[in-house]
Formats: sequence, C-alpha cells, structure tokens
Amino acid sequence: MLTEIRGSEAAVDGARARSPLPAVILAAGAGSRLAGNDNSPPKPMTRVLGLTLLDRIALACKQAGVFELFVVVGYRHEELIPYIDSLANRLGMLIRPVPNPDWERGNGTSLLAASPYLDRPFLLLMGDHLFDPELLDKLVLADQTRGMTYLLVDRQTEAVFELQDATKVRLDGSRIIDIGKDVTPFDAVDTGLFLCQPTVFEALRRAQSEGEDSLSGGIRKLARQGLVEEIDSEDHFWLDVDTPAGLRHAHRRLLADSFKASGDGWISRYLNRPVSLRISERLADLPVIPNQITIASALTAAAAAVLFSFGGRRSTVAGGMLSQVASILDGCDGEIARLKHRSSAFGGWFDTILDRYADVAITCGIARGFARTHPRPATWLGASLAITGFLLASYTKKEYQLQYREAVPESPVANLIKRDVRLFSLFLGGLVNRPYEALLAVGMLSHAGIAGLFIQRVRETRRGRRDRRTFGSMPRWRGAT
Amino acid sequence: MLTEIRGSEAAVDGARARSPLPAVILAAGAGSRLAGNDNSPPKPMTRVLGLTLLDRIALACKQAGVFELFVVVGYRHEELIPYIDSLANRLGMLIRPVPNPDWERGNGTSLLAASPYLDRPFLLLMGDHLFDPELLDKLVLADQTRGMTYLLVDRQTEAVFELQDATKVRLDGSRIIDIGKDVTPFDAVDTGLFLCQPTVFEALRRAQSEGEDSLSGGIRKLARQGLVEEIDSEDHFWLDVDTPAGLRHAHRRLLADSFKASGDGWISRYLNRPVSLRISERLADLPVIPNQITIASALTAAAAAVLFSFGGRRSTVAGGMLSQVASILDGCDGEIARLKHRSSAFGGWFDTILDRYADVAITCGIARGFARTHPRPATWLGASLAITGFLLASYTKKEYQLQYREAVPESPVANLIKRDVRLFSLFLGGLVNRPYEALLAVGMLSHAGIAGLFIQRVRETRRGRRDRRTFGSMPRWRGAT
Repeated sequence: MLTEIRGSEAAVDGARARSPLPAVILAAGAGSRLAGNDNSPPKPMTRVLGLTLLDRIALACKQAGVFELFVVVGYRHEELIPYIDSLANRLGMLIRPVPNPDWERGNGTSLLAASPYLDRPFLLLMGDHLFDPELLDKLVLADQTRGMTYLLVDRQTEAVFELQDATKVRLDGSRIIDIGKDVTPFDAVDTGLFLCQPTVFEALRRAQSEGEDSLSGGIRKLARQGLVEEIDSEDHFWLDVDTPAGLRHAHRRLLADSFKASGDGWISRYLNRPVSLRISERLADLPVIPNQITIASALTAAAAAVLFSFGGRRSTVAGGMLSQVASILDGCDGEIARLKHRSSAFGGWFDTILDRYADVAITCGIARGFARTHPRPATWLGASLAITGFLLASYTKKEYQLQYREAVPESPVANLIKRDVRLFSLFLGGLVNRPYEALLAVGMLSHAGIAGLFIQRVRETRRGRRDRRTFGSMPRWRGAT
Repeated sequence: MLTEIRGSEAAVDGARARSPLPAVILAAGAGSRLAGNDNSPPKPMTRVLGLTLLDRIALACKQAGVFELFVVVGYRHEELIPYIDSLANRLGMLIRPVPNPDWERGNGTSLLAASPYLDRPFLLLMGDHLFDPELLDKLVLADQTRGMTYLLVDRQTEAVFELQDATKVRLDGSRIIDIGKDVTPFDAVDTGLFLCQPTVFEALRRAQSEGEDSLSGGIRKLARQGLVEEIDSEDHFWLDVDTPAGLRHAHRRLLADSFKASGDGWISRYLNRPVSLRISERLADLPVIPNQITIASALTAAAAAVLFSFGGRRSTVAGGMLSQVASILDGCDGEIARLKHRSSAFGGWFDTILDRYADVAITCGIARGFARTHPRPATWLGASLAITGFLLASYTKKEYQLQYREAVPESPVANLIKRDVRLFSLFLGGLVNRPYEALLAVGMLSHAGIAGLFIQRVRETRRGRRDRRTFGSMPRWRGAT
C-alpha cells in the first residue's frame, strides 16, 4: 500500500517553480548529550531506521523541491565534510559544507557563517531536528514578499517531548513577540523550521554586539521589530533529537508516521500493522527497496495460490496462512517507502497492479482446489463472480478518487471492500478448510459493498441537489424594468 | 465515456475563491442577419442543440465560477426580460436584466448601461458568441491587480469563420495597440471575451463624446493608453453566431467539441463517433439526461449478454450487434453531458462502473453460450482469464492516472486495451459465430497490453534515473575547506 495524500499540490508546485529556495542546516554543535564518546558518529550522522539525521533532513528538502543546501559544520567537521560531499553525490543535490570556527560560541555564529551565500529568502533548519517533510511545504507557501521571517511553531505544547529543553515562543495573534528557552508564559514551541529573510544577519550581528550569540537572540531582535510570524505545524510531527531517549522517541515516531494516510482498514490497523511495522523496522537497516517487498508479497500470494490449488487440508491451511502473510507484507512496501523517502509513482502503480494479480491468482488457486472435489462449471462461475467483485471493488474506489478528487470516505461499507478484510477472510476460510465458501462470501460482499457505496453516493447527490434548490429560492434581485 | 481533463484546476479554484467576478453580457442588438422576422425568437434565445445562446453563455459562466450576471437588453427586451428571470431560477444564479433604451446607437452604450452596478473588475461577454467554457478560466486567472483590461484573441486568423465581419486587433508584443473591424494589417481577431476594469466606462464616455458609440471605440481609447493586453485563446473554440450559416457552423462545432479529451481509441474515433454524434444531435433536443443514456447503454449490453447466452447462431449474431450498439451509446452520454453542460463527478463514476459490469455481463453471456456445447470447467476458466484481463486493463489505466497525475500516454499498446476495441472484437466474433474465441483472444490481448504498459513504464523510469545520474555528475561546487 503506497497511498499518498496529495492535497493542494498544484499550489505547492507553483510556489516551488516561482522561487526555488536554498536551505541552511545548522549542524555545528557538539550534541554532547546524545553522543557521549568519540566512537559514536557526530550527531548529524547518527542513524535512525537506516538513514542518518542529515540524510533525512536533506531528503525532506529534496521532496519539498529544495535542492541547494548549506550545512554549517563545526564540531568534528573533519568527519562531516566528506560525509556531506558523499551525500551530495548520492542525492544529486547541491550541498555545500560551511565551516564555522566559532561554533562553540553559539548557533547564531553558525547561521552568520552562511551569510556570504544568502542574499534572498532561505529555509533554516536544525541538523538535529526531524520533521514531516510536508511541514516544509507550509514554509515554501508563505508569502515571501512581505519581508517577514516565519517560524513553524507547535501549539500543542503539552505533547512536546522533553519540553523543558525546548525553545518557547510567546504570541500576539500570529506575531511572535518573544522567543527563548525561559520565556514564560509561552503559547507555543519553536520547531526549529524557519523561512528567513537576509535581514536576520543584521539582527544576529546586533545581538552579538550585545554579547548574545544564540540564534534565538537574533530572532528575538527581529521579533521586537514585529518581523517574525508563526505558522502552525498542526498535526505534523517534528522532533528535537537531543538525547538517547529522544533518539528512541524519533525511532518510534518515524515508524508510526510510516503508514500515515494509507487509508487502513480494520484488519490492517489492528492486526497487520503491528506485525508489518516490526518487519519494516528490521528491513529499514538493510539495502532493501520497496519494489522488492512488493514482489515478495506477490510471490507469497502466488505460493498461497499454489497451495490452495492442491486442495488437501494441510496445504489449504498453509495457503490461508500465506495469504495473510502476503497481506502483512503488502503493508511493508509502503512503510519502507515512506521511512526511507523512496515513494514513487511507479512504485505505487506497480504495487497496486501486482496486488490485483495476486488476488486473481489466489482466487484461481482456491477454485482449482475446490474443483478437485466439485468438478462442476458452477465452481468456476462462483469464482468468476468473486474475482470480479474484488477487482470491481478496487476499481470503483480508484474511479471515485479520480472523479471526486478525494478518497472514498471512511464508512463501514468502505471498510468491507478493502483488501485486508478480503485476505483475512480467505485466511480464516483456509484455517477451517473452507476457502471456497469464504471466497464466495467475500466476493458477494464485494459486489454488495459496491452497491452500498453507490447508494450512499446517490443519496448524497440528491441531498446536494435539494440544498442547491433551497439556495436557489433565496431572495434575490429581479428584473429592473 | 465522461472523461474530462482537469489541468491546473487548483490554480483556477484558487483564483475563483480570491475574487468571484461578475459578468456583463451584451444582448441588446437586433441580430437582424440571423433572425429575419418576428416569428423567430430574439437572437440570444436562438436554440443550438437543445440550449439557447444565452443558456450556453450563462452555463459557461456558472462552470467558471461566475454566478452574478448582468444581461444588457434592448431590442425585444419585453421577451428577453422574463426569459432571463426564468433562466436565473433554472440555474440558481443571480442574473439581472439591464435595459438599454439607447441600444440602437451602438454596443458601447449597452456596456455603459451596466456601469452603475460595476465598481470592480468584471468579465465582458457577447450575447451572440459561443465559446469553450475553459476560455473563461484564462480570464479569471489573469492578474487583476495591474489595472489592465484583457481581451482573449485568436491568432489563427485564417481559421476564423466569416473573418470579414470579425473585429481585428493589432498587437505589439502582448499589448493591443489597435482594434476595429477595419484594422489593417492585423495580428489576431477579437473573440468577444474580456476581463474589464471599471476604467472602461470612462474610456467609453470619452469615445462617445467624439461620436463613437461602439465598444471597440472605448477599448481603442484604452489601447492607446497601453491599458489593454491580449490573452491567446490557443486551440479553444469560440464563435460569433451572426448568420444562419454561423448558426449551422456553431451546431457543427459544438458537436465536434462534445467528445474532446475523451481519449478515444481507434474504433471510437473512426467508427463509433460518426454514429454516436448523430444520435446525440437528435437527443440534444429532448429532455434526456446523460445518466439515462448510461443506463440505456448498460441495458443494451445486458440484452447482448442474454442473447449470447442462448448460444444459437442467430442470437449470437444479434448479441454481437447489440454489444456494438452498447459501445456506440457509451459515447453518447459523454457527448450529451458536454453539449448540455451536465458533466458531473457522479455521472463519470456511474458510467465507468456500469461499463465494467456490462463487460462482466457480456463475458458471462458468451461463456454460458459456449458452455452449452462445451460444458467443461475450462470454458469458465478461459472466461475468467478474459474478464480479469478486461477489468485489470481498466484498473491499470485508472491507477496510472492517480499515481502519475496524467492519463496513460497514447500508444498502440494503450489503444489495444481500450473498451471500443474490446467490444468491436466481440461484435466481429459474434458476426462469424465465434464469440468465445474472440473473447479469449481479446482477454489475452488485455493481459498482454498490461504487461506492455508495464514494460514501457519500467523503461521510462530507467531512462529517467539515467538522466538524473548524468545531471548528478555535472560540475558543481565542492566543500569549501
């Protein structure tokens, strides 16, 4: 399942085309609380689920259409600079390491080190913050012509991990009026994601002249001038990876985010995901690509089909179990794709086509197995009705999405015609050696589900038309003769 | 087939939400060359393919998100005013008739009559011009903050119908520097579609004081001030319906436009459309809605399935012929929807689902007919392979569109897995009393077509990756240490 939500993309694409922004990543600090000794890698090179923090930040930038990065390095720069060069090669991006000899004085000096390269608006990111790539779209879409600096903030402060160490902000409407670790009272938390104007350098220098070398010091100066506004991060995740506990938290959070917006059915959510996430967690550290998992899932389904076709009790049970394994693996490709930034249109297309062919194979296998003891045409007719139900249910949902430009809304009916329910029913049918009966039942259920969706839709269309009629009879002007 | 292209819609939606524009429609003239006597209706009430000119213009406005119309009336206003009121009711729009007692002096006076209602940018349309509704999107998207008046022009002047009567424009880049019937040399033709600023009223009054009462006179004044720019109408159609010949031309042009962007296959284009257009032409004058045609097509397919299932020679031939009738009718719903502005997401969804079920029914009918003489399981297995091929071919294309956000590119492979080819093959198979063989052949062709599409796509993905690698090794900066 490689589903992805693609809301307001035209707007984001447009904004990108208008102004491809550069980004600065501050990665100069020691990160001493995370990496205690010299054997562990520098903090930005710490791995989470197969990718380093810096990998993840660069990939998020690439996904947001930001291809020009300046990474400010200080502590252990002799290890980071070659790593950054290899990363640039690997991702085909323009990534320039910017050394900051003064890094120990504060992260304001690190941003200043990048100032010679920046005479236009730019994104500012922290080398130890992970975040949902969609957050960058919010910054890219902000109005750059107003001379404002924008900071993504999290208003759900009670949910922030290690809140005591976070940078807080006080708001006046959407204006940020104060920022710092010790601001009280505070309204929101700094996520470390900025859209900056070159004016920030002047502000940093002024703060510096007053002995304040932190980034917050400079931003505070701008805030006092009324030049900093907040953008709400809403429900998108962001994390400051500062401690071993923070790293574990990031690990969990990335996994939880890896199946976001997949439109999971009941079986997926409560039975398959707990298992598939554990598999993906292991696979993330290996050089496995999503399409390979897609193929593995299809081959498992093919094996299930062969086992079903033998018709004996033991092979039927094994076939049922393998269908369920195929269903679980079908979740892993999407999880790995999102975890490792490997989502692609081709991958999504490939996955859904193989899923449908896998359904065809399993259906044929079950029918063949049943035909051994019931060699009647009706056996194949029943199987035909079942497979057309499966395929048409999937088709109906896709066409709905194309026509209405949104996924089929969640409802019990919509849940019943999902693949997870289908394969789970065949699994149960296999366990009790009644796979053909299960196939017929779930096939009929699919046709009934399509009819149900259709009736829902007709009702809503009628309701919409009635509402329009009411509106149409509202008082309005008449001819002026 | 109710396919619709939906490019750059987010942008259009955004522009609409920002500024819902009003529109002025000039419908005050006598139109003497079209309606010679008092028995014929006033020109804006002339019917083409089931809708009056004014209906069509109002519906195009509605489709473009323009809900507030001012229709300037003069000649035979006593008939037009009640018609406009009933139209407002029928479409649920705000449509106000604006009488212009001076209409005989020129169409500049008609636009001036609407001036009390307009203190912001507005669309200006001619009551006797038909056009592709998508043209309005181009105007809605124009930058309204620059104080410019925009005129949609047609640069393909040699293709303009009745060019001698058209208003011509001379261009300097995208600036319009002269406008009028007798401008020579000219670069393009005025389509009668404007986005005006309220400044136009002042210009009209100045022209009037110099004895020039035409709209062109006012626009010429603005043009001399450098305040009029052109927008290219590109390949979208527009028509000035001035004469009986113009009306016949409009009739033909609307029909030709009614299957635009349907992604027709070979059989559709060269065999089905000539017939379906003739049917739609007749149906357009009747109160038939597209969903009824969709149902008629599905019922015809069901009848074909029943005939096939009898298995005899005569009923098989009849079944084949009915499948082809169903295929032709399948074109009519989309044509009528576009001709009568009745396209809807529900209609599109309904149509494609019924098409798929019709394919299932015909397949089952053919298999049942063949099973009468070949009562073997293999008969049904073959039919299963065929129907899964049909359904998966359709599914594969829809999923492609969802993932790649564009239709499957035209190619011989893409053409082979279209429904028109499928049903035509069954028609031919029916004629020679070999429908089952035809079913198997076209079923296998569908699976092969899916594989073909897949291989095409893999190749292109590989090529894309190679290109990226080439780009990735282009000279670029290195670490600055």
